[in-house]
Amino acid sequence: MIERIAIVGTGLLGTSAGLALRAAGFGGTIAGWNRSPEQAQTALHLGALDSIATDPLQMARESQLVLLATPVHAILDWMEQLAAVLGPDHLITDVGSTKAQITAASGRLFNQPDRAAFLPGHPMAGKERGGAALADAELFRGAVWMFTEDPAWNRSPSSAELVSNWRDWVAAIGAKVIDIAPARHDELVAWVSHLPQFVATGLSALLEDQVGDAPELKHVGGRGLREMTRLGASPYSMWRDIAYTNTEAVQAALFALEQRLAHIRENLRTPELRAEFDKANQFRKE
Amino acid sequence: MIERIAIVGTGLLGTSAGLALRAAGFGGTIAGWNRSPEQAQTALHLGALDSIATDPLQMARESQLVLLATPVHAILDWMEQLAAVLGPDHLITDVGSTKAQITAASGRLFNQPDRAAFLPGHPMAGKERGGAALADAELFRGAVWMFTEDPAWNRSPSSAELVSNWRDWVAAIGAKVIDIAPARHDELVAWVSHLPQFVATGLSALLEDQVGDAPELKHVGGRGLREMTRLGASPYSMWRDIAYTNTEAVQAALFALEQRLAHIRENLRTPELRAEFDKANQFRKE
Repeated sequence: MIERIAIVGTGLLGTSAGLALRAAGFGGTIAGWNRSPEQAQTALHLGALDSIATDPLQMARESQLVLLATPVHAILDWMEQLAAVLGPDHLITDVGSTKAQITAASGRLFNQPDRAAFLPGHPMAGKERGGAALADAELFRGAVWMFTEDPAWNRSPSSAELVSNWRDWVAAIGAKVIDIAPARHDELVAWVSHLPQFVATGLSALLEDQVGDAPELKHVGGRGLREMTRLGASPYSMWRDIAYTNTEAVQAALFALEQRLAHIRENLRTPELRAEFDKANQFRKE
Repeated sequence: MIERIAIVGTGLLGTSAGLALRAAGFGGTIAGWNRSPEQAQTALHLGALDSIATDPLQMARESQLVLLATPVHAILDWMEQLAAVLGPDHLITDVGSTKAQITAASGRLFNQPDRAAFLPGHPMAGKERGGAALADAELFRGAVWMFTEDPAWNRSPSSAELVSNWRDWVAAIGAKVIDIAPARHDELVAWVSHLPQFVATGLSALLEDQVGDAPELKHVGGRGLREMTRLGASPYSMWRDIAYTNTEAVQAALFALEQRLAHIRENLRTPELRAEFDKANQFRKE
């Protein structure tokens, strides 16, 4: 049973996880560490943590579960460091947005009988802005939480038990677990998460060029425009690692949308436009 | 003072206008007509109308203000018919989504001392689905309502008074009036309204092709995906006339976005991506 959790990265997701675990009745200890101490202080004040660590590797050693809640490149760095100090009584899991590289590193560095377990995870939850101050105990309720572990991994019995227990906690905080292969995960999120983000960024940047000098006209578009550009507020720091670690799938999705928009542009006065609307209607039909 | 209003087209906008006028204290009569009688019945039951007309031209003659709340091509048809039967004691106004053709027809058919007045209007309000059943007395609160009349038009004193009175009612139902030249209107809405719609349609249609056969995966994207595709539910019937009557401006906007997305696609691993995010952030900063 997991009784000592360490959260590395107490931003929006890490702090929300702490709050959600508390709300779901987790009675053990939660320690946290963040590169910028202010975020850890905010997480502590919100009740997501019991303590702030000064030495993250020491914190990890003293825990049973380490939750890595940083951008993807930082997760990969932490994996290298933690592999050297943790053993078969530990589980590490993460909330990274792309899973191919992390899952490959998991097989290489962990998930063998004499090593710690690593369970690659990705909750489909977030906000257009990050930070501990926006954390929410309900952030994961109803959200899909994907795991991309390899069924062939051969873990120690104690770490395998921690994996099973963590899956129960993820369900307890209201998320819907889906197991999926890492390559399929990265392709899927390119379509349903990364493409919408980069479209919102491109649309917002384009509109800033077009009407940015006339703030009163920004309001003309109403709710539709607000929704289509809300993700435009997402900072580069949240998306840089995604662009780097899922480049090909994102490129394919963007290219497909460029072609689709060109098709619409060339058919504004032909029956093809009706076919596009009908297909879009189909996507939204439940 | 306007005391007899006729609404031609009792869908979402026409019915909402009737409800909003009532809520704002309009004490006169509101008659309505709709091509499909069910929509008029719904509007009557909701309290947006006092009566349903069987002869729309007769209804228009007996009113002081005719509100045309149909798609653009139907508005242009009604303008031709009404020009033959209305005179200088009448005002016609509309809620059409594009204004260049309607404003040109207004100058040709109306707005002379011996003719009815026509005030071309466009409230930036709506929903992704139409119909009287979705009507809302609050639909226009806080929304921009644009007028594209030509200051050089020479109206009869009585119809000019109706114009002034209608502007007061539009303000009374909570809309923010902006006067704008028709060409500038059509260019502006191509960017802030039509482009977001066609992007949502294209994105939704593309995703239907990609993940439409796996309904459980539609939910993976979460709130961001839902917002970016909500307008994908808009029916072709609501957008056909817009595509036809604002073709060039929409084509220019779509082409600009295609180029923007290609730029992002080619720069997923370069500092140019940061510049795009920064510009998008700027658009959303208030």
